[in-house]
Amino acid sequence: MLDVRPILFVLGLLLSVLAAAMLVPAAVDLAAGNEDWQVFGASAAVTLFVGVALAITSRGTPTDLNVRQAFVLTTMTWVVTAAFGALPFAFSELNLSYTDAFFESMSGVTTTGSTVIIGLDSAPPGLLLWRALLQWLGGIGIIVMALSVLPVLRVGGMQLFRMESSDTSEKVLPRAAQIASAIGLIYVALTLICAACYALLGMSWFDAIAHAMTTIATGGFSTSDQSIGLFDSAGIDFVAATFMLLGGMPFVLYLRAVRGNPGALLRDSQVRWFLAIAFTAVAVMTVYLMDQFSALPFLDALRLSAFNVISVMTGTGYATDDFSLWGTFAVVGLFLLMVVGGCAGSTTCGIKIFRFQVLYATTRAQLAKLLHPHGVFTPYYNDKPIPETVAESVMSFFFLFALCFCLLAAGLSLMGLDYLTSMSGAATSIANVGPGLGDVIGPAGTFAPLPDAAKWLLAFGMLLGRLELFTVLVLLAPSFWRM
Amino acid sequence: MLDVRPILFVLGLLLSVLAAAMLVPAAVDLAAGNEDWQVFGASAAVTLFVGVALAITSRGTPTDLNVRQAFVLTTMTWVVTAAFGALPFAFSELNLSYTDAFFESMSGVTTTGSTVIIGLDSAPPGLLLWRALLQWLGGIGIIVMALSVLPVLRVGGMQLFRMESSDTSEKVLPRAAQIASAIGLIYVALTLICAACYALLGMSWFDAIAHAMTTIATGGFSTSDQSIGLFDSAGIDFVAATFMLLGGMPFVLYLRAVRGNPGALLRDSQVRWFLAIAFTAVAVMTVYLMDQFSALPFLDALRLSAFNVISVMTGTGYATDDFSLWGTFAVVGLFLLMVVGGCAGSTTCGIKIFRFQVLYATTRAQLAKLLHPHGVFTPYYNDKPIPETVAESVMSFFFLFALCFCLLAAGLSLMGLDYLTSMSGAATSIANVGPGLGDVIGPAGTFAPLPDAAKWLLAFGMLLGRLELFTVLVLLAPSFWRM
Repeated sequence: MLDVRPILFVLGLLLSVLAAAMLVPAAVDLAAGNEDWQVFGASAAVTLFVGVALAITSRGTPTDLNVRQAFVLTTMTWVVTAAFGALPFAFSELNLSYTDAFFESMSGVTTTGSTVIIGLDSAPPGLLLWRALLQWLGGIGIIVMALSVLPVLRVGGMQLFRMESSDTSEKVLPRAAQIASAIGLIYVALTLICAACYALLGMSWFDAIAHAMTTIATGGFSTSDQSIGLFDSAGIDFVAATFMLLGGMPFVLYLRAVRGNPGALLRDSQVRWFLAIAFTAVAVMTVYLMDQFSALPFLDALRLSAFNVISVMTGTGYATDDFSLWGTFAVVGLFLLMVVGGCAGSTTCGIKIFRFQVLYATTRAQLAKLLHPHGVFTPYYNDKPIPETVAESVMSFFFLFALCFCLLAAGLSLMGLDYLTSMSGAATSIANVGPGLGDVIGPAGTFAPLPDAAKWLLAFGMLLGRLELFTVLVLLAPSFWRM
Repeated sequence: MLDVRPILFVLGLLLSVLAAAMLVPAAVDLAAGNEDWQVFGASAAVTLFVGVALAITSRGTPTDLNVRQAFVLTTMTWVVTAAFGALPFAFSELNLSYTDAFFESMSGVTTTGSTVIIGLDSAPPGLLLWRALLQWLGGIGIIVMALSVLPVLRVGGMQLFRMESSDTSEKVLPRAAQIASAIGLIYVALTLICAACYALLGMSWFDAIAHAMTTIATGGFSTSDQSIGLFDSAGIDFVAATFMLLGGMPFVLYLRAVRGNPGALLRDSQVRWFLAIAFTAVAVMTVYLMDQFSALPFLDALRLSAFNVISVMTGTGYATDDFSLWGTFAVVGLFLLMVVGGCAGSTTCGIKIFRFQVLYATTRAQLAKLLHPHGVFTPYYNDKPIPETVAESVMSFFFLFALCFCLLAAGLSLMGLDYLTSMSGAATSIANVGPGLGDVIGPAGTFAPLPDAAKWLLAFGMLLGRLELFTVLVLLAPSFWRM
């Protein structure tokens, strides 16, 4: 039997924090003289009540978690946050159904950025801030998970990132708190710098802060239906691209940089691959755009290409143009970049760079082994040998990723969605990107017209992708519950 | 330094055999009173001259090959056969350029079945027979390679199929000869049975033998531009589907069946998966076709679906209908089936079923390991544990397959081909299927209109796919030649 009390205790604490977070948009709405502050007040009250009740009734239980409890807790953290984070959307004047509210909230905490809300420009400021806050909290949440919990759980090769001190799963929670506070400061600092840059370049302070939160979290929620395209400023595009790239790199390396080892960042092979892939893709897309639209000057092509390529690759999902209309090569290229994603330990999602590195290193070693059957060739990652179990984990991850993608796409297609919507919807949800491709869910559309069943399926896809598949899928195995 | 003399010796013998094979179409043309017999006579003379010269000048050298020599020999066997097999096409009245002739010949020996020849129905019988013979020889050639050479070379997980007696690479050649003779008899018998069925169902004996050779080799060359569609016979479709399936299963199991162990075939997990996937795909496609074309009766839908699904999955490439026009779901589904392929040790190409089994078993073991970090979970293939090196080989194979596919598609697209032609051309060549999708290279078209560079690239892709990628790619590594 699984002892759920320690899980409920942590979830209770989490909900209490979430309730506190709801007071921020409440305060903003109150200051703006907006009636909507009551929505947040009510949501906070419900959330706090449930949270405190859970925490009190399960108090005094051991806080050391075993592996199974850790899996359940990790998944439930995201599910519960999404479920209660949806309350303000459901209670608000937007009149969203709970399905829509949950979709929006899950899209927030998983830093996906798909939206069902039309008319953001006239929405109350508290609600816009709440969307940004959900992504911002989801962003720091996944960084902490990726550093502390996922490596211990050996999820999809993440054991490569185990730290010396995190060898036993009993230390999961204290370790998480310790890392969260150190990385959290850096996260806040980067957000403030990004907001300041936006404000200097002409955004209002409110827009600047809301966008900074979703930029660094590579989330992609905006305060306008036109996304960043509303501002039509090369400077803002450049700042956004820079901070999306920063959001796509391992935050633990920023910590090392701050602690006096700035070289660690550029010596890290994952960062090098990430930047190399990003810059190559931007260059190729720039040339392609100039070839495709012959009247487009070089700098405009570079701006369009850099912003949108980086936005898609990091899974942010801001748009300054409807890239569905850029032609087949661009669509296929962006589709591939979507699933590549950024670095492990960042706020991005997707397959992640280090998995491609493991695959590449293993393949190289294999080729060498063919020529020297009795030689020993060890694949390396960041100058350390890759354990065979990691190679197998990574291989399984690719397989599951492809399988989940196919199942999601097939499911959406059975619900009557067209081909491009099904395929890009599956990809954008499992890779936590945001917009899909095509007329309905492309950068110019929203997810609102989809049937409810499709929204639940997509929300499940976001959860799967955000928690590196294994964390969620393991809960679906009957043997997990038989122990 | 690589000692090339034993390689040249074997290639010399091979060319002498190829020259002898050319006498068969020469005899047929002579009997038909066709001037074209001179084309084969001349080609045979050139081939025999080069073959004998090679064999004599490098005679007396040790015939035991080391690993590097085995890699070079395997690749060169296919290249040299294609190069000389192209002579009859180049010399014939069809006036093909050498590029077209080489493309056709490579498409033959790799059992691909892509063609550049328009007007098959009025072509001389010798030439039609030569096309069938190339595929038939290529088919038995790859079975022998897959049983004797590739497992020893540890190519992409093929070491799973090592036999107890084939532990050292020194025994490659005698072993190959031994297997070739046993399997060869079965191959001939299956071809004759297939030809007899075709003839009974109304084909002329010539058409029956030519089609039987390309059916069992899952090659797909036909004697008519309309492919098997010309005969418009449900019986012939059924026979073809059956023998394509037989061509897609491991021939070594037929040997065991003949030797008194018929159960081995159905107990083999690769065969079970293969049949399960094939029958599921046929069922799904039948339902889809009935939904798509509401006037289509069940039996007609089943016939269309079974024939074309099996033809694509086994990489045969016969067509009875232009499946490019079946709608998006069918096109995507057939595209996926193309790369899945059949069993290892059969005449089919593609990724092959056993690699998916290894991937699946490894992923299952990974999921179990997540829950019990200290437990030991061994993935199994056919009731035997999968060695870790095999899992890594298979993972590398998937990676290289995806990489080669992308590079081929990108190359074709840079040569000015449209999106669907580039993508399906890359897939059909690397998976040795035959026709692509779309107007140009779809089942209704040919590869003739493509630029020469594209034809060479596609021919290279066929070679890559046929020899399981590694065998060819290893020769491209600079370190291979530095030893």
